[in-house]
Amino acid sequence: MHQPVDLAKAYRLLNHGPTVLVSSAHGERRNVMAAAWSMPLDFSPPKITVVIDKRTLTRELVEASGEFVLNIPGRSLAQATVAVGNQSGRELDKFAEYQLATFAGSQVAAPLLAGCVGWLECRVLAEPHIQQAYDLFIAEVVAAWADPRDFSQGHWHFAPGRERSIHYVAGGTFFETGDAFQVPMP
Amino acid sequence: MHQPVDLAKAYRLLNHGPTVLVSSAHGERRNVMAAAWSMPLDFSPPKITVVIDKRTLTRELVEASGEFVLNIPGRSLAQATVAVGNQSGRELDKFAEYQLATFAGSQVAAPLLAGCVGWLECRVLAEPHIQQAYDLFIAEVVAAWADPRDFSQGHWHFAPGRERSIHYVAGGTFFETGDAFQVPMP
Repeated sequence: MHQPVDLAKAYRLLNHGPTVLVSSAHGERRNVMAAAWSMPLDFSPPKITVVIDKRTLTRELVEASGEFVLNIPGRSLAQATVAVGNQSGRELDKFAEYQLATFAGSQVAAPLLAGCVGWLECRVLAEPHIQQAYDLFIAEVVAAWADPRDFSQGHWHFAPGRERSIHYVAGGTFFETGDAFQVPMP
Repeated sequence: MHQPVDLAKAYRLLNHGPTVLVSSAHGERRNVMAAAWSMPLDFSPPKITVVIDKRTLTRELVEASGEFVLNIPGRSLAQATVAVGNQSGRELDKFAEYQLATFAGSQVAAPLLAGCVGWLECRVLAEPHIQQAYDLFIAEVVAAWADPRDFSQGHWHFAPGRERSIHYVAGGTFFETGDAFQVPMP
């Protein structure tokens, strides 16, 4: 289930620092990998950064297409997140191996992973030096989506019985996103 | 309370995407601001990225000194985090205003904020183009510290009755870091 997210609120999908899945496609080839290292970079137009290692198939597809999707998995996809983060798309079709269903976005050819709680369709802003020196990619968010059961009108819900986003640490260990709380604005 | 963190494990302080406080100093001047947009960039030597807006006093002090500290606050500092994130160090001394105690690091002159759960002392790797175009700073982590009640031997504890790190959303709303869980490695 997915509904559009206003681009002005798209940063809120990523502001709390969840781990993401990066999906990509070029020609007939497509792939998905995990990335703990992504963050918002600007509000309007929304931009993000993400680290994509040189050795990955994702890197090859992103550099060829200039596009990717950041998919935000909930806890039910944690095991798949670790799996796709530890195997190469050069060796197996991760979508088939882990039975990951996809659907089409509106602006980019990279597939959106079904069952996630949010999605950011991204177009690379070419910055060859930092791509080469730091594996760091900057991209503009050109469309955003969320499962309205988990995020709507600019707010996460994380209601009982529904998904929560996840935050990778190391060695198969995650934190789930915890309880919300509010402090007074100055 | 703070003990050194092995630099090879320093990325784990930031891997789950907590909101940080950026402290800086140059000459007699010092400041602290909040940043939801920071992440690890490399393991060894450890590097991080953080967004520091052009209009901030922090930006001026970081560019002048080439150094800063990422302080990781727990929930008890959430209100201070919002306060220092919404006021300028050009208008008030935030350390005095919010009674923020500090202690000295080992590698940089920027102060470490007492009461946080982790600290990363950082030295800027000059990348003028992305600093100017995106307000994005890349830095090497040259020393790291944690409160051993919250993080030791490369692992977060977040034990009952102790602190948890925090994840900013917007408008004074945070998520605290939630429960840990483990999935099998492939």
